Amino acid sequence: MNFVPARIGDAVTEIDTPALIVDLDAFERNMKKMAAFADLAGIRLRPHAKTHRCAAIALKQIQMGAVGQCCQKVGEAEALVQGGVRDIFVSNEVLDIRKLRRLAALAKSTTISLCFDALEQVDAASKAAQEFDVELGALVEIDLGMRRCGVVPGDAAAALAKYIEAAPGLKFLGLQAYQGKAQHVREYADREKAIEAAATAVRLSIDAIKREGLRCQVITGGGTGTYMFEGLSRLWTELQCGSYIFMDGEYSAIEGSDGEPYAEFEQSLFILTTVMSTAVSGRAIVDAGLKSYTLEKGLPAVHSHNDMRLVAASDEHGVIALDGGVVLPLGTTIKLAPSHCDPTVNLHDFYICVRNGRVEALWPISARGASS
Amino acid sequence: MNFVPARIGDAVTEIDTPALIVDLDAFERNMKKMAAFADLAGIRLRPHAKTHRCAAIALKQIQMGAVGQCCQKVGEAEALVQGGVRDIFVSNEVLDIRKLRRLAALAKSTTISLCFDALEQVDAASKAAQEFDVELGALVEIDLGMRRCGVVPGDAAAALAKYIEAAPGLKFLGLQAYQGKAQHVREYADREKAIEAAATAVRLSIDAIKREGLRCQVITGGGTGTYMFEGLSRLWTELQCGSYIFMDGEYSAIEGSDGEPYAEFEQSLFILTTVMSTAVSGRAIVDAGLKSYTLEKGLPAVHSHNDMRLVAASDEHGVIALDGGVVLPLGTTIKLAPSHCDPTVNLHDFYICVRNGRVEALWPISARGASS
Repeated sequence: MNFVPARIGDAVTEIDTPALIVDLDAFERNMKKMAAFADLAGIRLRPHAKTHRCAAIALKQIQMGAVGQCCQKVGEAEALVQGGVRDIFVSNEVLDIRKLRRLAALAKSTTISLCFDALEQVDAASKAAQEFDVELGALVEIDLGMRRCGVVPGDAAAALAKYIEAAPGLKFLGLQAYQGKAQHVREYADREKAIEAAATAVRLSIDAIKREGLRCQVITGGGTGTYMFEGLSRLWTELQCGSYIFMDGEYSAIEGSDGEPYAEFEQSLFILTTVMSTAVSGRAIVDAGLKSYTLEKGLPAVHSHNDMRLVAASDEHGVIALDGGVVLPLGTTIKLAPSHCDPTVNLHDFYICVRNGRVEALWPISARGASS
Repeated sequence: MNFVPARIGDAVTEIDTPALIVDLDAFERNMKKMAAFADLAGIRLRPHAKTHRCAAIALKQIQMGAVGQCCQKVGEAEALVQGGVRDIFVSNEVLDIRKLRRLAALAKSTTISLCFDALEQVDAASKAAQEFDVELGALVEIDLGMRRCGVVPGDAAAALAKYIEAAPGLKFLGLQAYQGKAQHVREYADREKAIEAAATAVRLSIDAIKREGLRCQVITGGGTGTYMFEGLSRLWTELQCGSYIFMDGEYSAIEGSDGEPYAEFEQSLFILTTVMSTAVSGRAIVDAGLKSYTLEKGLPAVHSHNDMRLVAASDEHGVIALDGGVVLPLGTTIKLAPSHCDPTVNLHDFYICVRNGRVEALWPISARGASS
């Protein structure tokens, strides 16, 4: 059991660092904005729990109108069900019969659906569903250019849908149509074009599936970078956005509809860190490194300080370069904005939720490490 | 509580993936090799727990002759003490009085020492030690060119040593002299030169400290890339190597004394992952991504398969590019060798220890996430 970094009521200055903190005001504005959009667009919102890995946040999203949660992993689904979520879509393929049995066991109490791109997955899921006497919702994933998972749109999707429909214990629901590559494309117009192309592939697949006598009830996809396009398309029925609740450096770097940096959602997630050494001139060393944030999308930004940059990170240290004359005394706390929120969250056990300079709540990251 | 990915006695093929696995034969050979070197060189070995974050491994190292453990964080020290370790050096500065009180509390049952590079840290540590009526060992960290923590070698080190010696509750022990930058320098001769330069700075500091009437009992440093130089220097008294037990892509990329890739230690740590999708031609998608390994030092290598390369990773997927004609069927398990072992270990809850194709042990990563 790790040290719990704060107590409710503590001042922010009393939080033990490094810590993952959430600015509750910004977080709640982000939540409301997306919920309002989905409501206005008349599209179901099923936020992605791979971002937050936290049942407490999932329940808040559902309370604000979300129909349930997406997740990527069976372990995440287990943590969400244990936390009270009752409608989960695993937006990913599952092959292993033991994992499928775990999912089928969850389906006793929870609406569970998942993705397919191969016959072997269908056979295994059908077996597990029959063993547990449950029905699993089944979506065909189509590859929209990510070249990761998913069958070729059109006839291949229809053939797989037909195979699913014939499999006992599975109910064909529709298409997983997520254009992941488009999410972080810098220009707004290019993201829009990518989703237009995706829409063509989706229509091709819907039509092919219709020729097999089947109907796509669900077309699910969209992320924080493109949700406005899927949301207004009248084609997708469900949005899967995750990062909008927190934002990160990667999403802040893309362009909004006005050509300015994307500012529809606010940075609400930070790493709180303390200056622990100033012995080397021109630098301040903070106590958060690679075990508190990830670097695959670059170094975190120093929040609210344009005259400071994090220039290096090792396992447990971060190096802030100070412009001439800037002083950052020992013991100063600094907020870093992560470059990539999902894997950063997965390093922590708690969200320390902050409002008006005080700790208002601690939310356990109940699915942290649940990657199986 | 996450799903436990294996049971003792399971075949390797039964391990739930993704999982962190340890090849016990290779691991034990690595352990023995370093212990034998330290013995031969007549230098104390104090392996770094920031690599393994596991009390079970710490105890094995101590059983083989190590004098105790290094760690970087107070939380790591707590987990190690709880696991039975009785001599811990925090090879890092600690400033916060609350953290120092946690360390002082540990010093009731355990020999505890730590690093200093500022007067404020000395004042705070002295206060905590007096409050708990314990003595904390104190080392002055000197900056050997990393430009991270540490005072300028020589007179500044001596001044800080003198200040420490006068502080109630602290006992001046010597120098933290770790040349971190040298560890991953590719050429063997360049690493040797870097440690020669570090030795000059160490001697300068020892002499300045002697002029203040103080003696350095301990000169501690060294890592997996340079330990042979510090070990044979007759200057350093203690080695802090950590990664040698596991190795990783970063260490495999440096040169050994023979000009060949560094092969003194064997890769013993792997991510076990399963092919979950083969729907896109020329690719196999595995079920381990950024939540199972880190990328700041590059993508993991596919172990024992020269015809396959991991070419991309997203949060929960890895993409293996297949050369023309290579087939990797759905359900195949693959071992990935991480590029950077320490932060990769920190993503997992267990080491699944494997020998002769079976799970022989599960070691909890008891200090996972203990970054405060």
